[in-house]
Amino acid sequence: MDHRALLEAVRAGALSVDDGLARLRQLDADDLGFAQIDHHRSLRKGFPEVVYCEGKTAEQSAAILLRLCEVGTGPVLGTRVQPEVYQLVRQQVSDFTYYPLSRVLLLRRKVPVGKGEVLMVCAGTSDLPVLEEAQLTAELMGARVKTLTDVGVAGLHRLLVHLQDLYAARVLVVIAGMEGALPSVIAGLVDAPVIAVPTSVGYGTNFQGLTPLLSMLNSCASGVGVVNIDNGFGAGYLAALINRQGEML
Amino acid sequence: MDHRALLEAVRAGALSVDDGLARLRQLDADDLGFAQIDHHRSLRKGFPEVVYCEGKTAEQSAAILLRLCEVGTGPVLGTRVQPEVYQLVRQQVSDFTYYPLSRVLLLRRKVPVGKGEVLMVCAGTSDLPVLEEAQLTAELMGARVKTLTDVGVAGLHRLLVHLQDLYAARVLVVIAGMEGALPSVIAGLVDAPVIAVPTSVGYGTNFQGLTPLLSMLNSCASGVGVVNIDNGFGAGYLAALINRQGEML
Amino acid sequence: MDHRALLEAVRAGALSVDDGLARLRQLDADDLGFAQIDHHRSLRKGFPEVVYCEGKTAEQSAAILLRLCEVGTGPVLGTRVQPEVYQLVRQQVSDFTYYPLSRVLLLRRKVPVGKGEVLMVCAGTSDLPVLEEAQLTAELMGARVKTLTDVGVAGLHRLLVHLQDLYAARVLVVIAGMEGALPSVIAGLVDAPVIAVPTSVGYGTNFQGLTPLLSMLNSCASGVGVVNIDNGFGAGYLAALINRQGEML
Amino acid sequence: MDHRALLEAVRAGALSVDDGLARLRQLDADDLGFAQIDHHRSLRKGFPEVVYCEGKTAEQSAAILLRLCEVGTGPVLGTRVQPEVYQLVRQQVSDFTYYPLSRVLLLRRKVPVGKGEVLMVCAGTSDLPVLEEAQLTAELMGARVKTLTDVGVAGLHRLLVHLQDLYAARVLVVIAGMEGALPSVIAGLVDAPVIAVPTSVGYGTNFQGLTPLLSMLNSCASGVGVVNIDNGFGAGYLAALINRQGEML
Amino acid sequence: MDHRALLEAVRAGALSVDDGLARLRQLDADDLGFAQIDHHRSLRKGFPEVVYCEGKTAEQSAAILLRLCEVGTGPVLGTRVQPEVYQLVRQQVSDFTYYPLSRVLLLRRKVPVGKGEVLMVCAGTSDLPVLEEAQLTAELMGARVKTLTDVGVAGLHRLLVHLQDLYAARVLVVIAGMEGALPSVIAGLVDAPVIAVPTSVGYGTNFQGLTPLLSMLNSCASGVGVVNIDNGFGAGYLAALINRQGEML
Amino acid sequence: MDHRALLEAVRAGALSVDDGLARLRQLDADDLGFAQIDHHRSLRKGFPEVVYCEGKTAEQSAAILLRLCEVGTGPVLGTRVQPEVYQLVRQQVSDFTYYPLSRVLLLRRKVPVGKGEVLMVCAGTSDLPVLEEAQLTAELMGARVKTLTDVGVAGLHRLLVHLQDLYAARVLVVIAGMEGALPSVIAGLVDAPVIAVPTSVGYGTNFQGLTPLLSMLNSCASGVGVVNIDNGFGAGYLAALINRQGEML
Amino acid sequence: MDHRALLEAVRAGALSVDDGLARLRQLDADDLGFAQIDHHRSLRKGFPEVVYCEGKTAEQSAAILLRLCEVGTGPVLGTRVQPEVYQLVRQQVSDFTYYPLSRVLLLRRKVPVGKGEVLMVCAGTSDLPVLEEAQLTAELMGARVKTLTDVGVAGLHRLLVHLQDLYAARVLVVIAGMEGALPSVIAGLVDAPVIAVPTSVGYGTNFQGLTPLLSMLNSCASGVGVVNIDNGFGAGYLAALINRQGEML
Amino acid sequence: MDHRALLEAVRAGALSVDDGLARLRQLDADDLGFAQIDHHRSLRKGFPEVVYCEGKTAEQSAAILLRLCEVGTGPVLGTRVQPEVYQLVRQQVSDFTYYPLSRVLLLRRKVPVGKGEVLMVCAGTSDLPVLEEAQLTAELMGARVKTLTDVGVAGLHRLLVHLQDLYAARVLVVIAGMEGALPSVIAGLVDAPVIAVPTSVGYGTNFQGLTPLLSMLNSCASGVGVVNIDNGFGAGYLAALINRQGEML
Repeated sequence: MDHRALLEAVRAGALSVDDGLARLRQLDADDLGFAQIDHHRSLRKGFPEVVYCEGKTAEQSAAILLRLCEVGTGPVLGTRVQPEVYQLVRQQVSDFTYYPLSRVLLLRRKVPVGKGEVLMVCAGTSDLPVLEEAQLTAELMGARVKTLTDVGVAGLHRLLVHLQDLYAARVLVVIAGMEGALPSVIAGLVDAPVIAVPTSVGYGTNFQGLTPLLSMLNSCASGVGVVNIDNGFGAGYLAALINRQGEML
Repeated sequence: MDHRALLEAVRAGALSVDDGLARLRQLDADDLGFAQIDHHRSLRKGFPEVVYCEGKTAEQSAAILLRLCEVGTGPVLGTRVQPEVYQLVRQQVSDFTYYPLSRVLLLRRKVPVGKGEVLMVCAGTSDLPVLEEAQLTAELMGARVKTLTDVGVAGLHRLLVHLQDLYAARVLVVIAGMEGALPSVIAGLVDAPVIAVPTSVGYGTNFQGLTPLLSMLNSCASGVGVVNIDNGFGAGYLAALINRQGEML
Repeated sequence: MDHRALLEAVRAGALSVDDGLARLRQLDADDLGFAQIDHHRSLRKGFPEVVYCEGKTAEQSAAILLRLCEVGTGPVLGTRVQPEVYQLVRQQVSDFTYYPLSRVLLLRRKVPVGKGEVLMVCAGTSDLPVLEEAQLTAELMGARVKTLTDVGVAGLHRLLVHLQDLYAARVLVVIAGMEGALPSVIAGLVDAPVIAVPTSVGYGTNFQGLTPLLSMLNSCASGVGVVNIDNGFGAGYLAALINRQGEML
Repeated sequence: MDHRALLEAVRAGALSVDDGLARLRQLDADDLGFAQIDHHRSLRKGFPEVVYCEGKTAEQSAAILLRLCEVGTGPVLGTRVQPEVYQLVRQQVSDFTYYPLSRVLLLRRKVPVGKGEVLMVCAGTSDLPVLEEAQLTAELMGARVKTLTDVGVAGLHRLLVHLQDLYAARVLVVIAGMEGALPSVIAGLVDAPVIAVPTSVGYGTNFQGLTPLLSMLNSCASGVGVVNIDNGFGAGYLAALINRQGEML
Repeated sequence: MDHRALLEAVRAGALSVDDGLARLRQLDADDLGFAQIDHHRSLRKGFPEVVYCEGKTAEQSAAILLRLCEVGTGPVLGTRVQPEVYQLVRQQVSDFTYYPLSRVLLLRRKVPVGKGEVLMVCAGTSDLPVLEEAQLTAELMGARVKTLTDVGVAGLHRLLVHLQDLYAARVLVVIAGMEGALPSVIAGLVDAPVIAVPTSVGYGTNFQGLTPLLSMLNSCASGVGVVNIDNGFGAGYLAALINRQGEML
Repeated sequence: MDHRALLEAVRAGALSVDDGLARLRQLDADDLGFAQIDHHRSLRKGFPEVVYCEGKTAEQSAAILLRLCEVGTGPVLGTRVQPEVYQLVRQQVSDFTYYPLSRVLLLRRKVPVGKGEVLMVCAGTSDLPVLEEAQLTAELMGARVKTLTDVGVAGLHRLLVHLQDLYAARVLVVIAGMEGALPSVIAGLVDAPVIAVPTSVGYGTNFQGLTPLLSMLNSCASGVGVVNIDNGFGAGYLAALINRQGEML
Repeated sequence: MDHRALLEAVRAGALSVDDGLARLRQLDADDLGFAQIDHHRSLRKGFPEVVYCEGKTAEQSAAILLRLCEVGTGPVLGTRVQPEVYQLVRQQVSDFTYYPLSRVLLLRRKVPVGKGEVLMVCAGTSDLPVLEEAQLTAELMGARVKTLTDVGVAGLHRLLVHLQDLYAARVLVVIAGMEGALPSVIAGLVDAPVIAVPTSVGYGTNFQGLTPLLSMLNSCASGVGVVNIDNGFGAGYLAALINRQGEML
Repeated sequence: MDHRALLEAVRAGALSVDDGLARLRQLDADDLGFAQIDHHRSLRKGFPEVVYCEGKTAEQSAAILLRLCEVGTGPVLGTRVQPEVYQLVRQQVSDFTYYPLSRVLLLRRKVPVGKGEVLMVCAGTSDLPVLEEAQLTAELMGARVKTLTDVGVAGLHRLLVHLQDLYAARVLVVIAGMEGALPSVIAGLVDAPVIAVPTSVGYGTNFQGLTPLLSMLNSCASGVGVVNIDNGFGAGYLAALINRQGEML
């Protein structure tokens, strides 16, 4: 029972005011001992808490995901999920889907899909896991997503044949490792916001993604915002928020 | 004469097709010898080329600014401008305004102003030059901007009294030096995109803004995009682009 | 036989002065060949030597722990202990307890417990191993410890409902990974010393805890001291020392 | 008029409840346009807001300091103050004292002085500015401070003759540049908390204080908390907070 | 008298073998006390020693340059030259030319000019000093140099109109600051070697040219060699060497 | 069918113009879903796309390599190839050769071999994998390659006995780990271009090759271009391009 | 047959001058294909080439070690040796000894032992592998070595009881991880040269030994030279060279 | 009156035991308020305290230097001395000499000069200030010093003509900026200890001497110890200590 369900139950008399208050308190900080689940987040941020599973035990991750599933009515999303977590949650709830490439675990629930298009572009085949994480996140938040893969700057013509897609997008997510030049080139062509995602693809002085991160922060083209290395989730989330501005008419 | 003026002149017969072609070629790459002015940019990006003056001689900066002023019909913006440039351009064009705090030089020209609100927040008084650069940039691009200053996390109540402003904004620019925690706190409260700007305010292990940059890239709150250290211009530009999505209805 | 027992035996005539001197010499530098055990430390520092087991062989760690156990009368504490060490020591002394999450091994012995409260707070579930190390250390030194978990700044209300606990503490240990903003927010609210512990929780530009470390060193709130990344032991030890100042009335 | 004065005036009937509320609101966020003064801080933290003047114009710094002076009844402290600020404030309030070595500006007001002793030690003559900033801060907060200067580890006997002072202190502030070894040596000798302050004294691979900072964070002695490079203020503040625990009997 | 002149004099009988040997010895290590001039270098490397003047006193630089001028018959080149050096050398030799933008000082002497074309491209106006240093160096070594300026990736069309020049060059020097993406884009288009030169143009996380350096080392396009930041001389020298391979038919 | 074959088929009437256009379009961006193969590259750059296999699944790598093999008529080269890829491709095409030391996979096809000599030198036995990658790449592009191994600067005479080889080379590739001094010493002796390759051989402050990289970028000898750490492929490619300039007579 | 044996054979007529020349040439560069063994080194440096085995295959390491064994008459030393190498060499030569802690493999041969004493000190038990590598190296070169272990600065008295040993040494090797303060403290007490060896013992901001390295380079005590992290071999070698100066009377 | 003078005066009856004790106490820690002069150091270390003047006021430096001059009988040495200090001390003591290039200030007093030779070599003219600091320091401690300048690895023959000097030295100090390769080359040739000194000569990725420092720490030649960047004093001091071992026969 989330905030909306609770208020409706109170209004309908199905829930007393006192019981309502007690449940409200729990919604704000649902204490599992090792975690305080922030059910209030979907009210405040328009999207439920997302579970970053790296560094948690499989049991902790599963318990949090199942609790979100039980209390809320929105989609449930876990990132950097080890396969064991999927084994644990599916024993309770069969609807979860697991994406091994991006290690995303999610439970789809109905969200209204907008009209604007989010374009997600990646420079190379090795960047695909990050692109998938970004795409799944944004789609879960109601965005229509189109993708272009393997269009790095070493072969510009591969990108330029897609100029119409670049122009049509309401917001672009551009993902690249190596020297990370792609966001600069794309942001020089379009008048929509570009979210740049550096990846850890590369070797030597790439320093696990530091080089493309620095490139993107120093872009000579305007209109670029940057997220952490390999942070497909963060880029998808931000893209969905920006896209929603255009849906609000 | 910019692209629109050119086409209108051709259509009206005031300009022959051959002369039009010659001028078009010049618009695409107006060669001053030391600089190729990209008049085409306002067509492509919806905003004219902005002149980053650091590292250019005063004479070079002035010549580029005046050329943009002469050919285009949009606003003209220079950033990191030394005062000598202002002395040089005002001898030719009296309408330029110079802001010594942010070292911005601009020539205002009419742009339609939107309805959405961009909220710009800075953590401390020393961050004001960056905020001013962001604000002037966004306003020049037609955004309505509201500001909050000196509301750093060491005194949370100073921020929390402005919750209504935080909720009302279509996009937020959050500027902070020191440990750069403010974007995380604000992004945890709102459901609009947050552009985080680290500043070089601090000392010792602040490393001229590296610390707040890293903080912002690692924000535990979702919906944050980051720009380069002290890059008020970049944040203002990106905020204006995002804001425009909401105006397009 | 530690320093106190030795002096009492001499005073009672149970030990000759010459034998006492010989034993004193050994207490100051008890040479195991690969290690000099500093039994003098509990006299000098009020707490016995603690064994940092990383980089030692299991046999070396076990020998040192057992020797401390045999000679001293205080508690015995090992940190970063691999499970093999526990297997070895329990064959000799059955009272050791092993905590796999924080890899702490300890032998509890009676210590007087104070009245003041040390509050230990961590930002996320993944920070729990560090919190446990800090808590076990401080408790072993006689501190009363209360804990709050998973109250990161992305959901401020989870923290603010515990304001009374924050105000009540004599000293606070605040543990966070990611961008490490929690100590700033807490130190802005309380008038007690805050010990900040960065953790290696995060990815990409988190750089294994460098980002929260830098954040904490640059806190805009006053009254914060910082320890090494993941150094739960150091924080618990320092908190116990500070707490003891308040017990000494 | 600070919080206490206000409540007393209301109680005495000298101030109406409505006027009291209005003034309370101003105390919480006293808006100078470029700064929000946090008068509430002395209520919350037991000490008024301290003004870090680096990066502010002289006029901004002076205005904030004078405002704190006017509204509050506690001491007023500015750090990293350029001499021009002193010239400005003394025109209004003659009681300010300026310390050019540490660039501290302060207005002393009566505070009760405790019985415990804070010992501040620095490794070399070049560390004196940082020591002075720490000392002035802690004294302003009511601590009794004793100092030892130029007792670096290259001549251990200079330190060891002061063992009694080391043993007697309730909390120690240890300041060092170069390799920053002094806090480790001292913390190995005492059972009180040690606050370590790295300074930017050194050259080459000292990296403006990074080397002593890293040394202090990796101290093999227990009971050490570290603050930012050259952060005498932060160390003095934290020392005074810790010292106060012992005064509270 | 250089090696060739010496041998010719010996052959002609104008110089005895003994005197010849003595002069040969001096040519190999001409000792000015503070410098050993390597006249042998023009024999070994095909180009005389170049004087890097940074960190030398003006008197030292001038003495070395004049000595090279006196003994050799090839051109004389100084880089990073302060104006005082020019004042000193022109008192002795009037033919030196000084370029204040790139701080190059040179004495032109006849060199055969090749047929191949070296193309030097820079991304922005602020990169011009580095381009000038590269151009003067390569020209002094006999290369024909063509230049393109201000064709950064934020406006790709400015570059693409010069495709014929890109295709025609035997070797390219590509100079860029900011994110340093230009060499990747160009190397993706041509089949000639590309020498990439990062410049210190930029701010914040540009880190004085570290960002474009890293970008260039991680280029996803093949055929790129990188030189030190702002090292126009090194790039010009290497380009001239490569170009010479094509002249050797 | 590559570009040449296609045009010949059209010319011969074996392919209609419409079918030719369709195939041309595919050649420019051959879409495998997860990769866009750039067959156009061999036209543009004179050498087919090379497949960097790190970070791709074995299936993806194999599919791309086989597709290049099928469409093009030039050699096919994969770098950083895991053995599984070799197992997959040899099931389809038996001519591939796999080099486990350098993890190179290649399909040799006839290329004309030039007359000039590329000399590849490595400082130590541990640098051999990088040398092999460079050698195979350059040979595949038609260069004649000679190698010298284990001639580091700690025993200069091992290098100096090969002076004739050093003088004879048209371009040199110099590979070194540790302190990376070898390129400086060699570039001081020859008048041909030197491509320096740092390797990750070393420990401690070698930082996985950062030290030799920095050494090479700061070489006091002229005529040195640097590639990424362990980038044997990049060095071989660049050397072959430079060498080709000399072949073009 | 080494250089001395060769000359003696020539002198005795057992070897013709021509054969002698041929063998001399081989001694200077004994080519194994993947390695050039520098037998000349023992002539030049007074000690044979030492084999650093990291990054070589076991077969390569074994072949080089056996070749040194066969040709020379001095001791043979390998460092960072994997156990497989020991298995390979002992099949040929049974006299090799392997030390698993320090991964040293050596073949002892008679060297004259000096009178001076080299003192090797390490701060903690975890530093023992580095100390063992240093000790074995110096002893193989004829030095008398005495060791002190686990005398870190957190318990100064453990060190100070050994003052006589510190004073007696002709050269000291001081090994420490964590904050690396021990060399400063010791160099402040003695008038002999101190070789400081940082180790990778520590965690978090220790950065695998970077912190003690920086500490040691910035020592406030005079007379300290530093070697690479964990470089026991280098320290032992340098200590033996210095010690030999005192033996040469 | 230093330690020796004091004991002689007591022995001769010119000083009472009580007065002797009082003076002894002062010698151990001569307190100037801002500095504790360690006169005991010349007893302990065989050389008086050296004054590092950077970061001290001119008055502080002068007072310490004059005090050392007054109390001791050995030479007095100040490093990194600003000219003002020289002006101050010469008013009291006329015998000081100031070297502006290296900023060394010294008072020569008779020391016995040894027979061994210390060879100091620098790679370029710009390294001369560091060489001078090293030379003056070592000479003041009784070493005979010979110097070679400007013999960098870009022209090996300049170095190789001095092989006899290299072989003859008892210890070598090798100073280099740029890529810092010279110590490796020299240590590969000699069997004496080499002290390597990186200098801050260079630009871009030289990072103020970090590159040569790293090179020297990773030298592939054995027998190298490294000191801090630009630390001529430290190298001269260590060289003199090592040289003294050979004098002690």
